[in-house]
Amino acid sequence: MKLLAFSASVRTGSYNTKLIRLIARKLTALEVEVDLAVFHEFDMPLYDGNLEAADGVPEGARKLAERIRAADGMVVSSPEFNHGVAAPLKNAVDWLSRIKPPPTVNKPYFIASAAPSMVGGWRGAIALMPSLTYLGMWVAPDTFCLAQANKAFTEDGGLVDAALDQMLDRMLGNFVRAVNALDFS
Amino acid sequence: MKLLAFSASVRTGSYNTKLIRLIARKLTALEVEVDLAVFHEFDMPLYDGNLEAADGVPEGARKLAERIRAADGMVVSSPEFNHGVAAPLKNAVDWLSRIKPPPTVNKPYFIASAAPSMVGGWRGAIALMPSLTYLGMWVAPDTFCLAQANKAFTEDGGLVDAALDQMLDRMLGNFVRAVNALDFS
Amino acid sequence: MKLLAFSASVRTGSYNTKLIRLIARKLTALEVEVDLAVFHEFDMPLYDGNLEAADGVPEGARKLAERIRAADGMVVSSPEFNHGVAAPLKNAVDWLSRIKPPPTVNKPYFIASAAPSMVGGWRGAIALMPSLTYLGMWVAPDTFCLAQANKAFTEDGGLVDAALDQMLDRMLGNFVRAVNALDFS
Amino acid sequence: MKLLAFSASVRTGSYNTKLIRLIARKLTALEVEVDLAVFHEFDMPLYDGNLEAADGVPEGARKLAERIRAADGMVVSSPEFNHGVAAPLKNAVDWLSRIKPPPTVNKPYFIASAAPSMVGGWRGAIALMPSLTYLGMWVAPDTFCLAQANKAFTEDGGLVDAALDQMLDRMLGNFVRAVNALDFS
Repeated sequence: MKLLAFSASVRTGSYNTKLIRLIARKLTALEVEVDLAVFHEFDMPLYDGNLEAADGVPEGARKLAERIRAADGMVVSSPEFNHGVAAPLKNAVDWLSRIKPPPTVNKPYFIASAAPSMVGGWRGAIALMPSLTYLGMWVAPDTFCLAQANKAFTEDGGLVDAALDQMLDRMLGNFVRAVNALDFS
Repeated sequence: MKLLAFSASVRTGSYNTKLIRLIARKLTALEVEVDLAVFHEFDMPLYDGNLEAADGVPEGARKLAERIRAADGMVVSSPEFNHGVAAPLKNAVDWLSRIKPPPTVNKPYFIASAAPSMVGGWRGAIALMPSLTYLGMWVAPDTFCLAQANKAFTEDGGLVDAALDQMLDRMLGNFVRAVNALDFS
Repeated sequence: MKLLAFSASVRTGSYNTKLIRLIARKLTALEVEVDLAVFHEFDMPLYDGNLEAADGVPEGARKLAERIRAADGMVVSSPEFNHGVAAPLKNAVDWLSRIKPPPTVNKPYFIASAAPSMVGGWRGAIALMPSLTYLGMWVAPDTFCLAQANKAFTEDGGLVDAALDQMLDRMLGNFVRAVNALDFS
Repeated sequence: MKLLAFSASVRTGSYNTKLIRLIARKLTALEVEVDLAVFHEFDMPLYDGNLEAADGVPEGARKLAERIRAADGMVVSSPEFNHGVAAPLKNAVDWLSRIKPPPTVNKPYFIASAAPSMVGGWRGAIALMPSLTYLGMWVAPDTFCLAQANKAFTEDGGLVDAALDQMLDRMLGNFVRAVNALDFS
C-alpha cells in the first residue's frame, strides 16, 4: 500500500509540516510506503478560467494528480485560515477537479490539521469535507486536529502528550485498515 | 449484505419517503437485503440530558441502534430544514451518540435528500457530514439530492428524468460495491 | 433596548446556562433590559409536518416567537452536539420558521457556546449560521465559544480567565451598539 | 453611501460578472454610489507565509483593503467551486486578514452567486459565512444565488424571470437600508 502525504503549508517552521512528518514516520512503521511530498512540488497559480482555456491545467496540479493516481489514499495536514479552508489547499482541489478522469475517485483521504489555537483547525477540516466527497474521495471518519501545536511537539518531532500520540496511532491504524479494504482495483 | 434504509420525514406524502422507497427497490434489484424502516419506529423525545440521566437512552434510539448494528451500512433520505440539517434526523444522531459501544463505527452512510426547491437539500446534506464522520461513519462520496421533487416522480414511484434515474443507479451501484469492500467483520 | 437571552440546554448544571447568566449580568450592567428565559418555557415536540397540519405550531414555539418579537435582538448559548448544531436548538429554529410573519426578520443574534472540550462549540456555531441568516437574522460577527467550560467559571459565576472576561465584555459591547444601530422600527 | 462591488471570477463571460453588473445597476438606481471593481485589480499570489514575512502583504490585497475601507459595505458575486468556496475569493479573504487594522470590521457584506447548476452556488455561500464573520463583517440575511445562470439573463443584462428580478430588488433594498442603519462612523 502506498499513501501520498503532504503538508498544505509552505511556511518555514510550519506546524502542519511537523505533523505530516510525524504521520509519515508512523505510517512507515505500519509498513505503509509513504510518498512524502513537499507542497512546493505542486506549485500552481490561483485558479483562473481564462488561464485554463489558454494553457490547460498547470504542471503543479498535473504532478499532484499523478502522485494521487499512484497512491492508494492520501493524508494531508493543512492549517485552517479564517475559520475556513486554507486557500492554497482549496486552490489545489479546484485545479485537481479540472483533470479528467479525476485521480481522486474512491481514494480515501485522512484530514489532519495543526494550529496554535485551541480549536486546532476543526473549522477548516469541516469546510473541506463537501469538496473532498465531491471529488469522489472517502473522507476518513477520524480527523486529527492538533490544538496548541506550538507546544505540542517534542524535540525529535514526537508529540508531548502521550494520550494524543496513542490517539493518532489508533486513527492511522484504522485508516490503513480501511484503505486496504477499499482497494477497488 | 444488508442495508438499513429510511426516510427521516414522517409527513404523509413526504418526497423523502417516496425517494427512499425507490432507493430500496433499486437496492433490492442489486440483490441487497434492505431493511426498509419507517421513521416512526424510532420515535424518541428531543435530547435532554436530565432525561438521559434519569431514564437512559429512549427505546426508539435503542431500536435504531440495533437496526444499524444488524446492517452493513445505511441510506437515509432526509429533508433539509432552514438551510441546515432537519431537527428530527439530528436528534436521532444526538441520541445515537450516547449509546456505547457506538453502532455506527465504520458503517458506510449514503446521504439522500428530496425537496421541492431547486437546491434539493444540499445544504442539509453538507451540515450532516461532520456529525456522521464523528460517529465513525464513512460518508459515501456520492450524494443524491433530488431537486423539484414535487415534479420528479412518475405514478409508479420512478423518476421522470431518465438521466437522473441512471445517475441514482450508478451511485447506488458504487455504494454497494464500497459497502462490500468496507466489510471489517 | 431589550434582548432575549437563554441557554439552549435544559441539563441541570449546564455550562451554557452558567454562561448565559453571566452574559445577562453583563448586559444588564450595560443598561440593557434582559429577558432571561429558561428553555423549558419553550418546550415543544420534535418537528412533525402531520402534527403541524393537525394542530398548528405548538404553544412553546409560539411563546418563543412572541418573546423574540418583543425583543430587539437575542443571545443564545447552546452546546454543540456531535460536531454540529444541538438538536433542541435546531428544532426550535425549525418550528419558528413555520410562524408567519416570521418574528426573526432583521433581529440581531449573538451566538454563544460553552463546552468542556477545547473546541468550545465552534462546530455547532458554524452549522447554525446558514439557518439564522435564512430566518432573516443578522448574525453578530463576534461569537463567544467558551472552551474547557468545566474549569472556566469562578464560584460566583464569573470567568476565571481575565482576558476571556474582557473579550466577552468587548463582544457584548459591540453587539449592543449594533443592535441599537440596526433598529428598523 | 458607497458600496464596493465586484465579481470574484475573472473568466471572460463569467455569469458572476454579469450578475454583479446587474446588481451595480440596481444599486445605482437606489442612489447608492457603487465602486464597481474588476477582480484583476486585486491580483495577488496564493497566500504564502514566507512571502508575507519577506515582502509583506501584496499590493493587490492592500488595494482591496483600501477600497473596502472607503466603502460602507460590499457586495461580491462569486462562483462556488467543488461544493465549497472558490479559491480565488478565499485567497483574497486570507490575505485581507493579515492587514492591521482590519478594513472589514463592522462592514456589511451581501453574498451573491451565479452558477449554471440548479444549486446556484449555495454551498460556496455557506462555506464563506464563518470566514466573513471572523473578519468582523455583518453577513446580510439575504443571499442571492442565481441557479441556471446560463439561461437567466436577457440580452441587456437583466433577469429573464420577473419574480427573481423582484426578489433581487427587494434584497438589495433591504441591504441598503441595513448598511445605512449600521453606520458606526
